[in-house]
Amino acid sequence: MFAEDTISTIATAPGEGAIGIIRMSGSLTIKIAETFFRGINGKNAGQIASQQVAYGHIIDPDNGLVIDEVLLLVMHGPKSYTREDVVEIHCHGGPVPMKKILALTLQYGARLSEPGEFTKRAFLNGRLDLSQAEAVMDIIRAKTDASLRMAVGHLSGALSDQIRKMRYEILRMIANLEATIDFPEEDIEVLAAQDVRAAVVLLLADINHLLLTKETGRILREGLETVILGKPNVGKSSLLNALLKEKRAIVTDIPGTTRDVIEEFVNLSGVPLKIVDTAGIRETSDIIEQMGVEKAKEFVVTADLILLLLDASLPLSAEDREVLTMLSGKQAIVLVNKTDLPALLNLDEVYTYIADTKVLKISVMEGTGLAELEQMIVDMVYGGEITQKEGAFLTNLRQANLLEQAKYHLEATIATIDEGMPSDCIVIDLKESWDKLGEITGDTVGEDIIDQIFTQFCIGK
Amino acid sequence: MFAEDTISTIATAPGEGAIGIIRMSGSLTIKIAETFFRGINGKNAGQIASQQVAYGHIIDPDNGLVIDEVLLLVMHGPKSYTREDVVEIHCHGGPVPMKKILALTLQYGARLSEPGEFTKRAFLNGRLDLSQAEAVMDIIRAKTDASLRMAVGHLSGALSDQIRKMRYEILRMIANLEATIDFPEEDIEVLAAQDVRAAVVLLLADINHLLLTKETGRILREGLETVILGKPNVGKSSLLNALLKEKRAIVTDIPGTTRDVIEEFVNLSGVPLKIVDTAGIRETSDIIEQMGVEKAKEFVVTADLILLLLDASLPLSAEDREVLTMLSGKQAIVLVNKTDLPALLNLDEVYTYIADTKVLKISVMEGTGLAELEQMIVDMVYGGEITQKEGAFLTNLRQANLLEQAKYHLEATIATIDEGMPSDCIVIDLKESWDKLGEITGDTVGEDIIDQIFTQFCIGK
Repeated sequence: MFAEDTISTIATAPGEGAIGIIRMSGSLTIKIAETFFRGINGKNAGQIASQQVAYGHIIDPDNGLVIDEVLLLVMHGPKSYTREDVVEIHCHGGPVPMKKILALTLQYGARLSEPGEFTKRAFLNGRLDLSQAEAVMDIIRAKTDASLRMAVGHLSGALSDQIRKMRYEILRMIANLEATIDFPEEDIEVLAAQDVRAAVVLLLADINHLLLTKETGRILREGLETVILGKPNVGKSSLLNALLKEKRAIVTDIPGTTRDVIEEFVNLSGVPLKIVDTAGIRETSDIIEQMGVEKAKEFVVTADLILLLLDASLPLSAEDREVLTMLSGKQAIVLVNKTDLPALLNLDEVYTYIADTKVLKISVMEGTGLAELEQMIVDMVYGGEITQKEGAFLTNLRQANLLEQAKYHLEATIATIDEGMPSDCIVIDLKESWDKLGEITGDTVGEDIIDQIFTQFCIGK
Repeated sequence: MFAEDTISTIATAPGEGAIGIIRMSGSLTIKIAETFFRGINGKNAGQIASQQVAYGHIIDPDNGLVIDEVLLLVMHGPKSYTREDVVEIHCHGGPVPMKKILALTLQYGARLSEPGEFTKRAFLNGRLDLSQAEAVMDIIRAKTDASLRMAVGHLSGALSDQIRKMRYEILRMIANLEATIDFPEEDIEVLAAQDVRAAVVLLLADINHLLLTKETGRILREGLETVILGKPNVGKSSLLNALLKEKRAIVTDIPGTTRDVIEEFVNLSGVPLKIVDTAGIRETSDIIEQMGVEKAKEFVVTADLILLLLDASLPLSAEDREVLTMLSGKQAIVLVNKTDLPALLNLDEVYTYIADTKVLKISVMEGTGLAELEQMIVDMVYGGEITQKEGAFLTNLRQANLLEQAKYHLEATIATIDEGMPSDCIVIDLKESWDKLGEITGDTVGEDIIDQIFTQFCIGK
C-alpha cells in the first residue's frame, strides 16, 4: 500500500525551539535525503549506517545555497518507528529553516503526511496494535503523571495483553466446541457446552472488571469536568485560585481553535480536574451575578463533578436551595465554606435537600479542608476499590463500546447454551465476541475506523 | 570551568509535538542517563557508541515505573554541539513526559541550563566564534529566506573569515613596524610607516564597505519597521491586507510577553516588513479617526520606512499636509491610492511639500502599483549597489559598533603616521583596532559581554 509513498512533516512542536525535526518515512526516504544532504565528511545519506547521526548541511540543489546546519539521523526499516526507512533531519528549531527543509523534502518526492500517519504506518506494519497506537496520542496529551502512566502502560501493551488473553480463551472454547461437532454423541456436546459456559462466566467477570475502569480511564485521559457553583461572594474564585496555586497542572492550547481557548487543569494526586467556565469564575462579581440558576442547571447536566459552595456565615438562600435540589443522582460535593466565620447556616436544612451527597466543611481563607476535598475527589475517581496500576484501564469510548458489545455476545452465548442449542450456534456467538475484542486491538477492524482514529492525532506523529 | 557541571533542558519548542527532546551536556551526562535509561536490548547509556541512537525506556528509579518510550542519542565530546558529552533523549512530544524526564535529569545531577548555555559552551570550547554563535539565534528567529541565508552564512563563518583576514593584515603591519623599531635608521622606519599607511587605507575601504551593510543586515534580521499613515478611509487597512494576503511571512509570539503580542511580517522578496500598529490599522474606522497627527508624528520618528497614503480622488487635507511636512529626511514613499477613481488630488501641490521622497501611484482596489512598491522597498533596503550575498552583512548593533571603533583607530593610525610619530605609537593605534575587531569574533572579549549576548538566546539552545 505504501510501497512508493514517502511522507514528510515537521515532527516537533510549532514555534521557536533549539532543535527542530523534519521526519520522513517511506521507501524513497533515503534517496530524497541524498538530494539535499551533504555530510561534513563527504558522506551522503545513503552511506550513513542505520541508527546513526551524521553532521552536515542541507543544500538547496536549485542554487547550491546552504539552508541549515543539521544532524541527519537514519533508521533503516524495520528498525524504525514506522518499520519503513525513516530519516530525521535535526535542524535549528526556527520556523523558517524548518519550513524550508520540509519544502525541500516535498519538492524531491515526499508528500506532506496526514495527522497520525506515521503512527498509522507503525500500526499497519505491525509494530503497534490499535490500542497501543491510541496510547501514543494519550502520552502526548497526558495531563498528569497518572494519565501518563496509564498511557505508557497502554503503549507497552498492558491493555492489549489482557484483550489478547481473552481472545485466546474464546478461541480455545471455539476449538473445543468445533471438535465436538463431528461427534454426534450428544453427551460430549453437552459436556463441552457446559465447560464453555463456565469459562464464559469467568470471562464475563474479567470484562465487567475492566468495564469498571472506563470512567477512571476516561477521567485520567480527558480530565474530570468540574463545575464550581455557589452564589456571589461565597468564595468560588478563591477556591479556584487556591486549587490552581497549589496544584496547577498544564495549560494547553486546543489545536485548531483560537488562541483564547486555554484549558487549565488542576492536578489532584494525578487526577486532572478541568474546571468548567474558569473564565467565568474569574470575572468580576458583576458577571457572576448575571450567571443565574439557568446556567448552573446547564453545567450540572454536563459536568462530571459538581462542587457547590455554601456560605456558613449566611442562611440558605433561595438560589442555594434550588441548586441543592439539582444534585440528586449527581457526583457532587457540598462545600460549606467560611467556617472561620460565625455560623448562621442551618446544616440540618441542607441535609433535607440532599440524599447521599457528601458534605465537607472548609475554609478557603484559612486553607482548611482542602486536603480532605482532594482525597474525596480522588476516592470518587478511583472508586475506592480499583487500585491504580498503569495500563489496566479502558481509556476511551471506542474501547468501552467494543468491550460492551463483546460482553453482550458472551451473555448471548450463555443464553444459547442454556436454551440447549447446538455447538455451531454457540460458536457463532463466541465468534462475534472474538471479533469485537479484536477491534480494540485492531486485529479485526475496518479501514474507515482506522482512518477515523488516526485523524485525531496531531500533525507529525 | 564546566568540568563537573552538567546542564539539561527541553530543546524542542514548547507545546505538543510528535517528538520532544531533552538535551544534556557536560561530564556527568552519560552517568546521569545511565541511571534512568534502559535499552531494549539491555544496553545502558554508557554502552551506546557515539553518534548512535538506541531504543529503550526511561524508568523512574524511585519506583521502577516506565515514564516513556524513547530514543537515546549519545554524542561523545568533542564530536558534539558543545564539544562536551551530549545526550539527547527523544521522547513523545507531550508536556508531561518531557517535564517528567527533565525532572529526572535534574534529580540525578544535572542542573537546568540557562538560555543560550549550550551555544555558550560551544563558544567557550572553541567550536564557534562569537559572531557564529550570534548567528545561531538569528537562524532560529529568521523571518524570511533572505534572513535565513544571511544567518546561515554567518554561522558558516562568512563574516568571521572577513574579520579574521583584517586582523591578520593588521598583525602583519604591526610585525613590520616592530621590526623597524630595532633599526634606528630613520629611513627604514619612515618607509615602513608609509607601507602601513597604504595598507590601512585599503583596510578602511573594506571596513567602510562592510559598514554599508549594517542597515541591510539589521533589517534582514529584525525586520523593516514600517508605518502606514493616511487619513481615514484612504485604504490603509486594504493595503495592509493586500500585503499580508500575498506576502505574509511568519507570525511569531514574542517570548516572555503575553500571548496577545504577535508580530506579523510581510515578506517582500526576502525583506521582512514589520508593520507598526498592525492592530490599530485593522480596528474600525472610529479608532483610526481617534489616532491623530500626534500619534503619526511618534511613528514617523521611530519607523524605518513610512508609507503615506493619499487619496487621489480627494483634494489634500490639512492632515495630509501636516504629515507630508514630516517626511523630510526620512525613508518614505508617498502612495497615491484610488487612482482608479476620478482624480481630484493636486499632485503638484504634493511635490511642494517633499524634496526627494518617492511618489508612487497605486490602486489597492485594483491591485495596481503593488509590484512597483515592492521593488522600491527592496531597492531601498539593499541600497541598489549592495548585491545580496549570504554572510557579507553586519547583523547587529554590537558588531557595527565594534567595527566603527576599529575604523576610528585605523583613522587614528593614519593621523599618527602623518604626524611623523615613531613606530611604537603607530603600533598602539593598530593594536586598538586589532582588539576591537577581535571582539566581533570573540577572540578578545570580556566575560560580561559574553554573558549578555547569550542571555538573549532562547531556552534550550
